[in-house]
Amino acid sequence: MSRKIEQYLEEKKSLVEQALQKCMPKPTGLAGEVIRSMHYSLFAGGKRIRPILCIAGAEAVGGSADDVLPVACAVELIHSYSLIHDDLPAMDNDDFRRGKPTNHKVFGEAVAVLAGDGLLTQAFNLMARYGLEKQGKKTALLRVIDLIASAAGCKGMVGGQVVDITYEGKDPDPTVVEYIHRHKTGALIAASVTAGTILANGTEEEVRAINRYGQEIGLVFQIADDILNIEGSEDVLGKGTGSDQERGKITYPSVFGLSESKHIQKRLVDQAIEFLNKFDQRTEPLRDLARYIIKRRA
Amino acid sequence: MSRKIEQYLEEKKSLVEQALQKCMPKPTGLAGEVIRSMHYSLFAGGKRIRPILCIAGAEAVGGSADDVLPVACAVELIHSYSLIHDDLPAMDNDDFRRGKPTNHKVFGEAVAVLAGDGLLTQAFNLMARYGLEKQGKKTALLRVIDLIASAAGCKGMVGGQVVDITYEGKDPDPTVVEYIHRHKTGALIAASVTAGTILANGTEEEVRAINRYGQEIGLVFQIADDILNIEGSEDVLGKGTGSDQERGKITYPSVFGLSESKHIQKRLVDQAIEFLNKFDQRTEPLRDLARYIIKRRA
Repeated sequence: MSRKIEQYLEEKKSLVEQALQKCMPKPTGLAGEVIRSMHYSLFAGGKRIRPILCIAGAEAVGGSADDVLPVACAVELIHSYSLIHDDLPAMDNDDFRRGKPTNHKVFGEAVAVLAGDGLLTQAFNLMARYGLEKQGKKTALLRVIDLIASAAGCKGMVGGQVVDITYEGKDPDPTVVEYIHRHKTGALIAASVTAGTILANGTEEEVRAINRYGQEIGLVFQIADDILNIEGSEDVLGKGTGSDQERGKITYPSVFGLSESKHIQKRLVDQAIEFLNKFDQRTEPLRDLARYIIKRRA
Repeated sequence: MSRKIEQYLEEKKSLVEQALQKCMPKPTGLAGEVIRSMHYSLFAGGKRIRPILCIAGAEAVGGSADDVLPVACAVELIHSYSLIHDDLPAMDNDDFRRGKPTNHKVFGEAVAVLAGDGLLTQAFNLMARYGLEKQGKKTALLRVIDLIASAAGCKGMVGGQVVDITYEGKDPDPTVVEYIHRHKTGALIAASVTAGTILANGTEEEVRAINRYGQEIGLVFQIADDILNIEGSEDVLGKGTGSDQERGKITYPSVFGLSESKHIQKRLVDQAIEFLNKFDQRTEPLRDLARYIIKRRA
């Protein structure tokens, strides 16, 4: 399984990289600095999991990367903006990300805030323009913009992030950690894969099932991150390990312990894959991806 | 003229306030704090100029407030987000806005950054949902999302803001100040009024003319702000005067002097009104608004 999914990830990643290069404005003119700052973080070596999930969500119902690339780019822009803002001194105050200095360390805090704002805004620009250009996709694009904005907003990612920060140092609580992980990370992951299915004309039943799959693997993804923050290798991660504990972050290991967190992970992966039961072999990459998330090392 | 336009502004503002109350999520649940923070800045006593322009842009071609209220709210949410981020310590480091402590002074920097992110995202949510709910408006809404995202993004408002900040303390330069003002302030104002005309089914020629009008009054609006920062009364403004000069901000008065800045303002108002020549009496509020901008005291 591992080699096949790794090859799949590599192939799709290369499509995404090309599309990302094309979708970004050039860093010219008086405001070139903020665009350079946007480029810096967007091309700092991300795994492109969200755009790949968007493509896989389309393929699951017979669509292709071509149907979804602008939206796949949009979710990666939103992910990239969220990392820039999360790393700010007022937030997690991180100096390194993926082995490189964080955005505000290179461009200063003011430009980093604005680069995040620019990436978030550009994501909606991409999706709206795609809706205007692509024949017969207007309703789908409006649905996708609605879905992604809900997932990224104050009842989604932004809400999860604020709880993550305001609960630092407080008692580890199962309800709180599930809220944080489902919102901070799960919501955008679920929206990414679901958007692909919507754009590839999935039925309502298919869209619902893929969304449930996405909710579960989104949560798994963040639990895996928690575990990597303890067990991972600094070289492979490109950032310090053990930082969650130092900061008193509420994580699955801090609430449930390491061993139980791994059990929860496995159970969630099984549940995620069950939501794919009614689909055919075209959901194989989604199944493999779910299993792969808990095996990754970075 | 003054009394009539003041009454118009008051009437439309009251419509906008009601719509804003309805369009915002309730501050409940674990992430209630960030929603309270969003409410705090959104309901801190803004003049609602951008949403009123959106309504006036619709009325100019026979539409009404009902056609545009969700979009009118969206542009105000974007304006509100931009103020929260502009006031941050890393940016303008302002302690007061409209006579009240700024968002980060009340909620802390982390929540303030996230409240801004939440408002920006919510704006796109509102517009997409409106496009899905309102019959026959899908293309118009995608056009409006595209227009507003361009105006707010790195080639618009965000771009203007980054130049405003990175050129602090540098030599006053006419090209730079026009770039800052047209992008930081003008772009969203132009998009607001133009969005109204698009949603009310204005012809391409009408949309273009209203957009040109918006570009000019957007610039005028920021020059008027520069002048108020020198001549205004602290009581009426709710924030300190003279702060631009202290910070070495590039403004029209710092580049052209106060008297010449006022001449430029008047010339721009005349130019703006000329773009309305081909319209009928339904553009009277837009004409009056253009003249009103340079007479306001706060």
